[in-house]
Amino acid sequence: MEAKEILRKHIAQTASLTDEQFDYFFSHFKPQSYKKGETLIRPGRAVECEYFVISGCLKAFFVNDEIKTYILQFAMPTWWTSDYGAMYNHTNATITVDCITNAEVLCLASHDREKLCSELHQLEHFFRWRTNRGYVASQKRLLSFMNNDTKARYEELLSLYPQLYNLVPKHLIAAYLGVSRETLSRLYNNHR
Amino acid sequence: MEAKEILRKHIAQTASLTDEQFDYFFSHFKPQSYKKGETLIRPGRAVECEYFVISGCLKAFFVNDEIKTYILQFAMPTWWTSDYGAMYNHTNATITVDCITNAEVLCLASHDREKLCSELHQLEHFFRWRTNRGYVASQKRLLSFMNNDTKARYEELLSLYPQLYNLVPKHLIAAYLGVSRETLSRLYNNHR
Repeated sequence: MEAKEILRKHIAQTASLTDEQFDYFFSHFKPQSYKKGETLIRPGRAVECEYFVISGCLKAFFVNDEIKTYILQFAMPTWWTSDYGAMYNHTNATITVDCITNAEVLCLASHDREKLCSELHQLEHFFRWRTNRGYVASQKRLLSFMNNDTKARYEELLSLYPQLYNLVPKHLIAAYLGVSRETLSRLYNNHR
Repeated sequence: MEAKEILRKHIAQTASLTDEQFDYFFSHFKPQSYKKGETLIRPGRAVECEYFVISGCLKAFFVNDEIKTYILQFAMPTWWTSDYGAMYNHTNATITVDCITNAEVLCLASHDREKLCSELHQLEHFFRWRTNRGYVASQKRLLSFMNNDTKARYEELLSLYPQLYNLVPKHLIAAYLGVSRETLSRLYNNHR
């Protein structure tokens, strides 16, 4: 499926746009290709846009002072990713977004997103609902960290990203769950 | 200040409504008064609305199987609270919202919120931005839990709710931070 078609189907789940409106919306996206390991967002730099994933897999992560990595999000096809704190507040990035595999994305500039939301009520509706869902998922994940419920987190991960376990190196999955490789193996074996 | 005036000022920070539009918006809210200890949202029940706090302090929390309490949010004046996962997905509540002090709130039914967002583009804009900010705060808190950075979480708490330390029992603050009472005292003493 073409990038345009993938985005169209994705939007149609939440908002009704005419063909003309969708063409206008789509004209603001820039298609970009990245190689495995390339970086889209880098700590300390401004964040001008967000990315809609067409193919491949990205990760958004934070590295602390002891060089330990924490994965905030995997971004698979039809997922969106950015450093939203930095993008919304016009501050520099605190996280990194890079490519686990070769990837194709559509890039939407932050100022275009705001312009489009103010021009087309249906797009404001779409982006409101997208963030609503992101907020709820984030609260759920927060609760599982507070509650130290690794099993819930593992099951949530499998339901969010069913194909992930075979696609992504195990140390990255462990870094998403906040567990050791050994705990991950145990979760995986108990779950089969 | 009257409830209506408080809400008006709050909305005006993000969205421009005419007096007529604001009156229409406000006509959908129901003022409610609660006593300290009373419960607004109870696990297992449907969640029909969200609450805008006029006075007092509420807490949204989760109790796990071992009866340990995790506080997701304190809600002070001009904050909104609900079980958003349950409200958006029309499922039963998994968290509790109750009153730390006597409180006055404005209650907005979920179906009215959706209706208002579709009728008034400016309100869709307001609610999109409110959720954007909530999402970013939630991701930041998530990261501080993943990273086990209690100091960052404590400082974030003080900046979000400067007056909280004197208002709320210390065991609730510890339950928000996910630390023991002893760790909380240490953070407090080191910070002064």
